[in-house]
Amino acid sequence: MKTRAAVAFAAGKPLEIIEVDLEGPRAGEVLVELKATGVCHTDAFTLSGDDPEGAFPAILGHEGAGVVVEVGPGVKSLKPGDTVIPLYTPECRECEYCLHPKTNLCQSIRSTQGQGLMPDGTSRFSLDGKPILHYMGCSTFSNYTVLPEIALAKIRSDAPLDKVCYIGCGVTTGVGAVIFDAKVEPGSRVVVFGLGGIGLNVIQAARLVGARQIIGVDINPAKVELARKFGMTDFINPKEVDNVVEAIVDLTHGGADYTFECIGNVNTMRQALEACHKGWGESIIIGVAGAGQEISTRPFQLVTGRVWRGSAFGGARGRTDVPTIVDWYMEGRLNIDDLITHTMPLEKINDAFDLMHEGKSIRSVVLY
Amino acid sequence: MKTRAAVAFAAGKPLEIIEVDLEGPRAGEVLVELKATGVCHTDAFTLSGDDPEGAFPAILGHEGAGVVVEVGPGVKSLKPGDTVIPLYTPECRECEYCLHPKTNLCQSIRSTQGQGLMPDGTSRFSLDGKPILHYMGCSTFSNYTVLPEIALAKIRSDAPLDKVCYIGCGVTTGVGAVIFDAKVEPGSRVVVFGLGGIGLNVIQAARLVGARQIIGVDINPAKVELARKFGMTDFINPKEVDNVVEAIVDLTHGGADYTFECIGNVNTMRQALEACHKGWGESIIIGVAGAGQEISTRPFQLVTGRVWRGSAFGGARGRTDVPTIVDWYMEGRLNIDDLITHTMPLEKINDAFDLMHEGKSIRSVVLY
Repeated sequence: MKTRAAVAFAAGKPLEIIEVDLEGPRAGEVLVELKATGVCHTDAFTLSGDDPEGAFPAILGHEGAGVVVEVGPGVKSLKPGDTVIPLYTPECRECEYCLHPKTNLCQSIRSTQGQGLMPDGTSRFSLDGKPILHYMGCSTFSNYTVLPEIALAKIRSDAPLDKVCYIGCGVTTGVGAVIFDAKVEPGSRVVVFGLGGIGLNVIQAARLVGARQIIGVDINPAKVELARKFGMTDFINPKEVDNVVEAIVDLTHGGADYTFECIGNVNTMRQALEACHKGWGESIIIGVAGAGQEISTRPFQLVTGRVWRGSAFGGARGRTDVPTIVDWYMEGRLNIDDLITHTMPLEKINDAFDLMHEGKSIRSVVLY
Repeated sequence: MKTRAAVAFAAGKPLEIIEVDLEGPRAGEVLVELKATGVCHTDAFTLSGDDPEGAFPAILGHEGAGVVVEVGPGVKSLKPGDTVIPLYTPECRECEYCLHPKTNLCQSIRSTQGQGLMPDGTSRFSLDGKPILHYMGCSTFSNYTVLPEIALAKIRSDAPLDKVCYIGCGVTTGVGAVIFDAKVEPGSRVVVFGLGGIGLNVIQAARLVGARQIIGVDINPAKVELARKFGMTDFINPKEVDNVVEAIVDLTHGGADYTFECIGNVNTMRQALEACHKGWGESIIIGVAGAGQEISTRPFQLVTGRVWRGSAFGGARGRTDVPTIVDWYMEGRLNIDDLITHTMPLEKINDAFDLMHEGKSIRSVVLY
């Protein structure tokens, strides 16, 4: 079949909206019609050429929502008409990782996914007979796409897809880090470095689980108003204090119970660890640092009880947890609407990247 | 009263065995007759002058066992004749730390203890009317010493004090790191960097909790025999492999569930983290690095599921957990006898430091 798609032909160039060829689903695969897709920093990172694993031509996008059109042989958990969110971290429920209680990093199709291919080692997309690569196993910048059954979360049919598509990456990354990875307890004091989309989702999850204090740290005071709406109780602008770590220790009466780094800066990662309370504070790295950069601290910080960990896709097991997060949104426990600041048709998708780079959007969503 | 003691008059000089004056216990304090004390690397570190918090003259020693002689006003949990192990990490059961479920780092007397003083800000030791400092709240290099009630673990009276004194530091540090901090599960694959006294205690605790594989890493092959006796299943000599991390990943089929750094070297701390299994491996720093040294890694190591933490006094709450560890020894579940390689009278205590520096002892114990 044919499908409209925004194709990344080369690093650093705008996406081109064209028609490409899409082969139907093979065994264990599912054809999905996307209704909406978010545009994420990770897409921009790959498009920029800085991603060492980036390959072209490819159809980017990994934060979508849609409806099943057709299933291939052997697919049992999905049928045409089901509402789904694509998962760049699949959940096969069979591999060593899925069967381990401490991780969500299903590895069953990792090697082919990393190469931009379906699990059988081929691509379903092509143009003029030449293959176009998939991206993060999703390729949501195409109106229709094919995914493995294990990379689709079935969600309730009444969810607005132009909103819950954001659960495919950003919402789950922030909310899950709080709930599934850090397991923040009621009454905790929480610090969030970076008040972008991820940081705001960390904030609202911290409020959801009953944190007593939620401190935001950002050099841009324009972010304060929305952050307060999401649950931030205190704000620290690093430009206005002598020492961020000391300011946090003062404000929390000894240090944070949990800190979240949502920037991707190795210096703030260190601050986030050292702002934790002696004895029990835990720091969770969510942001992605530049290639080759390293974090450092004195080991004394850990020996005296701080814990340093990270979070990927919020620790969520996609097929299991994403439907739950959709429920939380539908029940009014999570605010997604205020985070989606811009929408546009596929033809304007390059505007979404511009808005992101200019810092004008929290999240732009493409509507098919 | 008078008591024999080994006094550290200045950094870098041998201890002097002399008689000093010891004032009796004040309110909340307990006079203890020590029967035995281990000599630990931490004593040597302070005596060397490298410890930035070291002060002189002082009576070192923090790994003892003895009997209560007299209690001061208000002491309720101990009486003369009770068998006790001094605790350099006390357990007041009242401070913010004792009441927090995640830490053992009681802070109730930390500031005075750090200054070498009793909680009321004075010393009980003196010579010719001039005060001599306490050390780590214990000063077990004196035949008699005074400690706060909260810094004494009451243990069973049938325990041999020349052996269980080692539980006052080394045994608990290694065993506790496995059981109380890492909470190693049965079937885990464990790696231990450094096969000294702490490492051997990590090994026997890993065996105690049912680890399936216990890999020792040390540059000294002479340590293999005893380590195997304690439960080590595999040995890696870093001098004999190209890459320690790769060797561990191979041997564990993907990485360790838990690694323990028992050396105090920031380079092996990094190796210990990076040898952990993606998704769930946890690395616990026990060793104390040199002043100002830093640990580093790429944050990707944490974002992909590894956890970096530390352990002090094995995460043990002394008054609660030390008696349990004594029970484990008495039940034959822990081997301490083979770790105490040398004993000597107080007059020969400087030999214990020589044996340590020459690498000839695992643990020397002074018998009063």
